[in-house]
Amino acid sequence: MRFRKILDETVRRLPVYLRELLRSLKEGRQHISSQNLADCLGINSCQIRKDFSYFGDFGTRGVGYNVKELVKQISKVLRLNVRHKAALVGVGNLGSSVLTYSGFKTYGFDIVAIFDIDPRKVGKKTKNIKIENVSKLQSLKKRNINLGILAVPFEAAQQAAEALVKAGVKGILSFSGCHITVPKNVKVISIEFANDLARLPYYTPAN
Amino acid sequence: MRFRKILDETVRRLPVYLRELLRSLKEGRQHISSQNLADCLGINSCQIRKDFSYFGDFGTRGVGYNVKELVKQISKVLRLNVRHKAALVGVGNLGSSVLTYSGFKTYGFDIVAIFDIDPRKVGKKTKNIKIENVSKLQSLKKRNINLGILAVPFEAAQQAAEALVKAGVKGILSFSGCHITVPKNVKVISIEFANDLARLPYYTPAN
Repeated sequence: MRFRKILDETVRRLPVYLRELLRSLKEGRQHISSQNLADCLGINSCQIRKDFSYFGDFGTRGVGYNVKELVKQISKVLRLNVRHKAALVGVGNLGSSVLTYSGFKTYGFDIVAIFDIDPRKVGKKTKNIKIENVSKLQSLKKRNINLGILAVPFEAAQQAAEALVKAGVKGILSFSGCHITVPKNVKVISIEFANDLARLPYYTPAN
Repeated sequence: MRFRKILDETVRRLPVYLRELLRSLKEGRQHISSQNLADCLGINSCQIRKDFSYFGDFGTRGVGYNVKELVKQISKVLRLNVRHKAALVGVGNLGSSVLTYSGFKTYGFDIVAIFDIDPRKVGKKTKNIKIENVSKLQSLKKRNINLGILAVPFEAAQQAAEALVKAGVKGILSFSGCHITVPKNVKVISIEFANDLARLPYYTPAN
């Protein structure tokens, strides 16, 4: 699989490109230049050209990139050319905002199962999905759900991650703000608010 | 400012190191090897040594890095050796989870002001801070708050960002899932849940 060779940094930018390209496509745009993209996204145009060079060349000098072709290629590289089913674990404030967040659909993700440990929540419906007890996580395997979104507190994260892995989940998006240990064949991407905020002062010199 | 030369990718990892080092320090640990850190964090030990080489050499072969010294240096590089005051704009589900999130304190951030546009929220207190009307954002300047956390919906993000900039804010952590245009002297770091989820399938090959 040659795609495996793509730098993590490039993989990080691909969804950003894809979203912008999908928007351009919706507006009926057929071609886009790296400079157009650079202006929209605040990413250097050289960087964009370098990133796109990873998986072929869809650009024509003076015309730009073929938007449709780029969408197709990036989607394929990221394996977003198929829909993915995800389970949400934890429906506190954060889990609730994840559910109301419309951005996932853009990339073809559907949150189709929700789990919580709180007996006051289990059995209720939110976004038309019944909240299940975390003890039922094992059912993910036969429901063909292999992505998990972890929105449980710090202390519960490792255990919940292990339950997800046991249920066959291969990718976890974690909001739990701690390092989670999983087998090598499972990928965890952590969203850690504090780490991102912690980078800001570096870029914002004192008055 | 020589620190400006550090690669964005390294800057991204520094808070991760810092948090782990602070934890080690709390446990009374004086030295730590790159391998120890690698094991805790799931980051390659060569990468860690390379990152640390940016700002001097605190390692002793066979002994490891001096934890206290590393904490001091990384904090200095990231400008986290002083406390920072931040304002939160938007107290929906997401804003509320940002407020309950304890991770910010680790790095010396204090959320000291909260703003919303909803008249039902304005004037109420949450986490012992009075929610102010967004029209009052201008007051941030004289309150010496120069970091903003944007947790408003997509449609309101650009306008809110502009208000923050007008109020002297130099760094914005945005949860709004869209590209925000700001003057060059202002840094925006965006947390985009969907873009992170969108990278997962790349790393999780099909069954």
